[in-house]
Amino acid sequence: MSVTAARGFEAAGVAAGLRSGSGPDLALVVNRGPIFSAAAVFTSNRALANPVIWSKTAVADGVVRAVVLNAGGANCFTGAEGFQVVHATAEAVGSALDVSAGDVLVCSTGLIGEPLPLAKVLDGVTRAAKSLGRDGGEASRAILTTDSRPKTSSRLRPGYAIGGMAKGAGMLAPGLATMLVVITTDAELSAADLDVSLRHATRMSFDRLDSDGCMSTNDQVTLLASGASGTRPHREEFTQALTELCLDLADQLQADAEGASHDIRISVTGARSEGDAVEVGRSVARNNLVKAAIFGNDPNWGRVLAAIGTTSATFDPYDVDVTMNGVRVCHQGAPDRPRAEVDLSPRKVLIGIDLRSGQESATILTNDLTHDYVHENSAYAT
Amino acid sequence: MSVTAARGFEAAGVAAGLRSGSGPDLALVVNRGPIFSAAAVFTSNRALANPVIWSKTAVADGVVRAVVLNAGGANCFTGAEGFQVVHATAEAVGSALDVSAGDVLVCSTGLIGEPLPLAKVLDGVTRAAKSLGRDGGEASRAILTTDSRPKTSSRLRPGYAIGGMAKGAGMLAPGLATMLVVITTDAELSAADLDVSLRHATRMSFDRLDSDGCMSTNDQVTLLASGASGTRPHREEFTQALTELCLDLADQLQADAEGASHDIRISVTGARSEGDAVEVGRSVARNNLVKAAIFGNDPNWGRVLAAIGTTSATFDPYDVDVTMNGVRVCHQGAPDRPRAEVDLSPRKVLIGIDLRSGQESATILTNDLTHDYVHENSAYAT
Repeated sequence: MSVTAARGFEAAGVAAGLRSGSGPDLALVVNRGPIFSAAAVFTSNRALANPVIWSKTAVADGVVRAVVLNAGGANCFTGAEGFQVVHATAEAVGSALDVSAGDVLVCSTGLIGEPLPLAKVLDGVTRAAKSLGRDGGEASRAILTTDSRPKTSSRLRPGYAIGGMAKGAGMLAPGLATMLVVITTDAELSAADLDVSLRHATRMSFDRLDSDGCMSTNDQVTLLASGASGTRPHREEFTQALTELCLDLADQLQADAEGASHDIRISVTGARSEGDAVEVGRSVARNNLVKAAIFGNDPNWGRVLAAIGTTSATFDPYDVDVTMNGVRVCHQGAPDRPRAEVDLSPRKVLIGIDLRSGQESATILTNDLTHDYVHENSAYAT
Repeated sequence: MSVTAARGFEAAGVAAGLRSGSGPDLALVVNRGPIFSAAAVFTSNRALANPVIWSKTAVADGVVRAVVLNAGGANCFTGAEGFQVVHATAEAVGSALDVSAGDVLVCSTGLIGEPLPLAKVLDGVTRAAKSLGRDGGEASRAILTTDSRPKTSSRLRPGYAIGGMAKGAGMLAPGLATMLVVITTDAELSAADLDVSLRHATRMSFDRLDSDGCMSTNDQVTLLASGASGTRPHREEFTQALTELCLDLADQLQADAEGASHDIRISVTGARSEGDAVEVGRSVARNNLVKAAIFGNDPNWGRVLAAIGTTSATFDPYDVDVTMNGVRVCHQGAPDRPRAEVDLSPRKVLIGIDLRSGQESATILTNDLTHDYVHENSAYAT
């Protein structure tokens, strides 16, 4: 169980009855120390779910002892009772583990605007606390919504380990694409160092996975350090390993996008700045006409150029190259190789964009726009 | 024929063989004067099609004698030859009408990156110039792509008339949603006055029709005045009539979105500024999860709030009201009336958003995200 790959951590997943079906839907991850450093990043949506509001405050002092996560309800826009549910959940975890509720983070995923049944949550917490184990149990399965499989990853480095679990993102999750990630390490690092490393790693990975352009109210990525290895890595080295792990989890999220039939990698080069490269990649990733064309195996590069044209990046539309799965279909804004040479039948699609305006680059991951995406997202709540 | 409803104008539509099928695909609209004032607005995409590049220059002096429009090819990213095709087309119109090519605007719609066959265009221009008539002939049909019917509108005011034709917009037009509009009037107005009136009218109408968030390389709205009525209306009065006509055409464009099963009107009130209201409405209009939910007749108001949360508008997420087809499902960021009371089965859907932060408002029109949208836009070029 990768979220407990690092020493000092225990986890469990139990069925609390929060959603239809009998599977696990509540997970608990506990740091046994000796240190309890933590950092977290949250959705930039201004409409914040109750667990996000709670967790932002709880992590502010850099000390976290446990994270409790539930599927079956986002606990967002659920009125004043919704925040009380989060508070009571953290208190219950605190009591069960004999730690302060203020050192417990809460994460939720599911439908917005529906109350989360407190009694079931509290019962789940009690049972999860009794099931904690070094193998992590069903934790990585308990946080899934429409995901078809758990996502875990780990990295071993001399003297220490990093492990993590993830759910959601993009078309995976009709309930607004919530992404929940918990990463643990037995390295000995301060909360400040964890924060720097985590911000870099998420900026290069999850932030560049843009399946459907929709931003959740509940996204949360948490990093906990137990120090149980006694190893103090250089922050740069740790950041690199953490980034690798986050990229692996992001790839798994993209590959499990249920509605999708293509995993699209948009590689932007020749940009004046990294920000330009990201803006261009994201604009293409969010363009429904590009995404529908890829679904139809149609190398419609004109739509790629039209999407680039809506950005404020530095480029000349008549000096841009576009390559699709290795075939340069557009050179300096004019037709190059015939569309017919492009084979878009593989699931993996690479769109290369050379802005010919500088030396910077970035890669954005997305998926195609499919009938299954429309079906899944039109039939979720009813 | 509404594009010739005003005196002083003639038009024609002919089959030039630019696209498959035998229907008309080239239109010509001619101003016979006595004055030749004109104004135009163009796509804000930085990737501009060749006809847009030409027309921007040609209209700069405020004098236009004719507009030639074709379906069957956008003439965008078609290399140096593409611009020569536009130039030769304008020259051919100029020769046929005995006017300067510099007073001829060119509009195109269709696939990007495919050359437009010059010989067919020139032959079409010759035949269109010979078919010009006061009834306008097939002009409004010649500019259609996947539209199911022509869109025309006219307004009669004391002493003068305004008439127009339109194609495209949003899901109507898989070829990147190009919108082409030509409006004529026999009022006597200067180019400067036309420009002010047209910018106001388009800002309140076409700019607020956001079917799929994708911006074309070819959009062009042209307004021509012949002065043939001898009437000089007040500019405010003319602007009002013109805005009415543009709103009517925008409604027709929305209603004919072939892939769509719902026409969605997003009415934002209580905004601090009109800009805030437009930003919020547009964010909701472009949210694939909201649009897919409406397709599924699912009043998933949480997705509306999540879309609002991505904007920079002034509001408090926990003080927002959302109404769907008359049922207030969210009051001050908490659940209000049950979702089950909302009937989304009619084609017309009204989403009301009260930001409770000011007195300004705006309405954005969009459509739902459907299987047919995905199908139509994945199967266009191949």
